[in-house]
Amino acid sequence: MMMSEGVEWGLHCCLVLGWLDERAPIATARLAEIFELPPEYLKKRLQPLVREGILESTPGVRGGYRLAKGPERITVMDVVAAVEGRTGAFQCTEIRRRGAGETAGKSEFAKPCGIATVMRRAEMAWRRELSSQTIADLLADAPANAATRARRFYEQRTA
Amino acid sequence: MMMSEGVEWGLHCCLVLGWLDERAPIATARLAEIFELPPEYLKKRLQPLVREGILESTPGVRGGYRLAKGPERITVMDVVAAVEGRTGAFQCTEIRRRGAGETAGKSEFAKPCGIATVMRRAEMAWRRELSSQTIADLLADAPANAATRARRFYEQRTA
Repeated sequence: MMMSEGVEWGLHCCLVLGWLDERAPIATARLAEIFELPPEYLKKRLQPLVREGILESTPGVRGGYRLAKGPERITVMDVVAAVEGRTGAFQCTEIRRRGAGETAGKSEFAKPCGIATVMRRAEMAWRRELSSQTIADLLADAPANAATRARRFYEQRTA
Repeated sequence: MMMSEGVEWGLHCCLVLGWLDERAPIATARLAEIFELPPEYLKKRLQPLVREGILESTPGVRGGYRLAKGPERITVMDVVAAVEGRTGAFQCTEIRRRGAGETAGKSEFAKPCGIATVMRRAEMAWRRELSSQTIADLLADAPANAATRARRFYEQRTA
């Protein structure tokens, strides 16, 4: 069970866009340089974040990306959900109703299957952790050097 | 990010093998009937559970499956890990070192990336939940009818 690499790219882009917020919008080509990525690849990675209102994308020659809201209002879970969707990792296919279960009365299945319930509880614990951390928290915890370096790197390429 | 369907099958088989423990080993064909499954499909699904010491598989005409240990000693996490492996869902590819990060001093990367840390914390919360529930807990929470039905279904087909 692997998370798409789009999550990691999305979060790193949010951090960089947080650091460069005063210079925003940041052109796709510039943002791509910061990560040594082909711009088209980065664009595709960021599409779900734009669609979900995490990033704002302005078209045109002076356009680019910026955080669509304050970094304290974007949780890590928001980015994960934008890329991965909100469907739980475990999908109950009602195995309990098959074969031996076919003769059971319907009322027995009124409550969700115990296995699905345990899975759901674990998923909620995971989501709670990811929802408790915002892009602002990640910005605060990142080494100060990283912010300075991203800004300098950007200035050099736009001078 | 989807969990393999092998997890759901594995857990349901553990429950049924718990209910039929006094009749074990349960032949593949019988166990497959309980779920209306092709025996070969079921066998393939259970291989990782045998490999990880959750189920015991006895060969031969009187062979079959049984729980390899008491249901109170098998956690839901054990079954998930047997099928999905123990690798975390998020894999940090050290994006922070790319492009603008290339000039950073090595000491800056001594600590794991903040994004990986948040992901790890969420993964641990998820694992903690799944580790806190055993097959014995699932057996205790399942409707009594389900156990009776599985036993009756099995008796009818082995009479």
